Amino acid sequence: MSFAADFVALKQIGADPAGGWSRLAFSAADNAAHDWLLEAGRAAGLAARYDAFGNAILRLEGTEPRPALLIGSHLDTVRNGGAFDGAIGVLAGLEILRRLRASGQPGAPVEAISFRDEEGRFGPFTGSRAMMGQHDPDALAKARAADGEALAEVMAGSGFSPANAPRALSGIAGYLELHIEQGPVLEQAGCPLGIVTAIAGQERLSLRFTGQADHAGTAPMDLRRDAFAGAARFATAFRDLICAAGDPALRGTIGVVKLSPNQGNVVPGEVTLGLEIRSTDGGTLPRLRQRVLALAQEIAGQEQLGLRIRALYSESPVPMDPALQEALVASAAELGHRALCLPSGANHDAGILGRLVPSAMIFVPSIGGRSHCPEEETGPAPIEAAIDVLHHAVMTLRRARA
Amino acid sequence: MSFAADFVALKQIGADPAGGWSRLAFSAADNAAHDWLLEAGRAAGLAARYDAFGNAILRLEGTEPRPALLIGSHLDTVRNGGAFDGAIGVLAGLEILRRLRASGQPGAPVEAISFRDEEGRFGPFTGSRAMMGQHDPDALAKARAADGEALAEVMAGSGFSPANAPRALSGIAGYLELHIEQGPVLEQAGCPLGIVTAIAGQERLSLRFTGQADHAGTAPMDLRRDAFAGAARFATAFRDLICAAGDPALRGTIGVVKLSPNQGNVVPGEVTLGLEIRSTDGGTLPRLRQRVLALAQEIAGQEQLGLRIRALYSESPVPMDPALQEALVASAAELGHRALCLPSGANHDAGILGRLVPSAMIFVPSIGGRSHCPEEETGPAPIEAAIDVLHHAVMTLRRARA
Repeated sequence: MSFAADFVALKQIGADPAGGWSRLAFSAADNAAHDWLLEAGRAAGLAARYDAFGNAILRLEGTEPRPALLIGSHLDTVRNGGAFDGAIGVLAGLEILRRLRASGQPGAPVEAISFRDEEGRFGPFTGSRAMMGQHDPDALAKARAADGEALAEVMAGSGFSPANAPRALSGIAGYLELHIEQGPVLEQAGCPLGIVTAIAGQERLSLRFTGQADHAGTAPMDLRRDAFAGAARFATAFRDLICAAGDPALRGTIGVVKLSPNQGNVVPGEVTLGLEIRSTDGGTLPRLRQRVLALAQEIAGQEQLGLRIRALYSESPVPMDPALQEALVASAAELGHRALCLPSGANHDAGILGRLVPSAMIFVPSIGGRSHCPEEETGPAPIEAAIDVLHHAVMTLRRARA
Repeated sequence: MSFAADFVALKQIGADPAGGWSRLAFSAADNAAHDWLLEAGRAAGLAARYDAFGNAILRLEGTEPRPALLIGSHLDTVRNGGAFDGAIGVLAGLEILRRLRASGQPGAPVEAISFRDEEGRFGPFTGSRAMMGQHDPDALAKARAADGEALAEVMAGSGFSPANAPRALSGIAGYLELHIEQGPVLEQAGCPLGIVTAIAGQERLSLRFTGQADHAGTAPMDLRRDAFAGAARFATAFRDLICAAGDPALRGTIGVVKLSPNQGNVVPGEVTLGLEIRSTDGGTLPRLRQRVLALAQEIAGQEQLGLRIRALYSESPVPMDPALQEALVASAAELGHRALCLPSGANHDAGILGRLVPSAMIFVPSIGGRSHCPEEETGPAPIEAAIDVLHHAVMTLRRARA
């Protein structure tokens, strides 16, 4: 078997007649993909098992009982997602274990892991957080998908349990993840590989501007308190603020806009904006958050609007481990592949493990920057290069720590 | 009986346990209200009938066979609407017919009419348009409410027909309507009465800005084509344009905003704005429409967004009849009531009849500018004044044309 053959085989599982792949976490397709992975691992002579949460673990034992190097990603997809996101990282791990086993070289144990529910059907990074013991047990036991399905119910009969399945950190030497970039940077730079410097932290806020719903025909312009007029002014000023910061790793997005009553002949009485800021600099986020809120308050005041602010989510940046980054950079150089160091604006399982164990990531370009859609694609050459670089780095790291 | 007693009686019909009144057009409550009106008319010694569409007509015959003066409005409400919108205009007509009959004075025939479906459950101004013969017969026969109910079905068994019920224009001398302002102008001016100069025309447009949906974490700010960022800039510039025109009767509203995918971590790929402009000046609307579209195109170009424009609705202004306006102004002056001349930003049955027969309207203040809600209210004094002024004007007009 080979990566290419594995990829063809995996694409048979969860292909959606409506387009792309739908391997929603703990769905029949997702379970089948994970069963297939364990089978493929066993066929390659590896120890293969699920942990108590259902994360799939393939293991090549080391020549002595030392902490393992983990290579991981995920097999689940969003609905009508792509074939590459997560999947190529897991299959890269399987491929590298096969190569390491065939080489017979001594060194530390290495594992390939597929974390469950990276796409967050039952919450953000449910599987890797379970392995790191990061869940509030009560909340996890009651976790439900947006479609109403309960985690406990979809796990019923599988032998898995909606509880933390913590693993001893002393048994983990480090974590490496290969993933698609999901953005346009590598493609635009014409570079096949990216070495991630840090995973951005984020602040998600909900801002509700409240004015007065009025008849669009009868309310004179100067007597209105138009919540959308205020929200639109704020949106423009918000983008200006983010762009003026001059930090290319900074992101500011208003992705959600909800009007009430959202009716053609009524002046909007209420507008809720869902806003997020991402930065790889831990100091930037709270500073910028303050400036954004001050801006919203200023505009709400000028427009005679009420303003309610809710913090939805806050997460500090996760710097990638310098030694692991360096190992990836050196391997790329040694194999003659160009690699660009870049931050990850998206979060990954490496952002969960990276808070507790040394972690690093290697990116491959997303064609057109697309992901989470059937059109998601990465050329075969960058994937092959990334697997080679990751393999080379793992060989070095196994030996280096031997 | 009196206006006050009629108003108390009518409020018993269609009161909604969830708040306000729900006399949706051709619902049981709406039918009951119209049956009650015909009964009240008969009890007052008037001829009372439905036309073929279900519009309710009370008539005081004149002393000679001449065109009739019509006084009208509507008894239907929006869901959870108020007690005043439409209802007080119909009851004013009934009250004036009672006074005219009691006076025994000679003159032209006078009618009080309740037009069906003013609130547009089955389309804009379905009842008055049926009486004016303005419907496309095929479309009307197939008309459905947003809740799926078909006009033909709700009419079944009532003897009404989903077809035009055109009335000879030669039989109509003019149309007068008393209505709540549904805006804040009279209240803020401290004036009990408004004489409408014109009913605003309107342009309704749908503007769809199309960019590129991107991952909010991975897409750098300078590589985005953020449809909402463009739409927000346009919204601000649009309001500035309307306000800078310096015409107090001009209105510009963005009441509908729809994002796709409207998800917190995705740069908006598509935004549709529902926009309307209203003006009482027929020349202003097309001129302003051109400027608004040029503005949208300019901003879409700067933001590298696609733009699709759809015209949803276009209606020219309807000036009120100068002689009828003058009769109302003179009556108010004679009875010692202050009256403000103002345009109507909202459309009314007078906007339908006014295209074909001389028409005019008298407004009473809406407390807080509220309407279409349980809190809709108008004090008793302005209503009484408006009925007196309308009664006086009708007496004058009946005689004047005798």
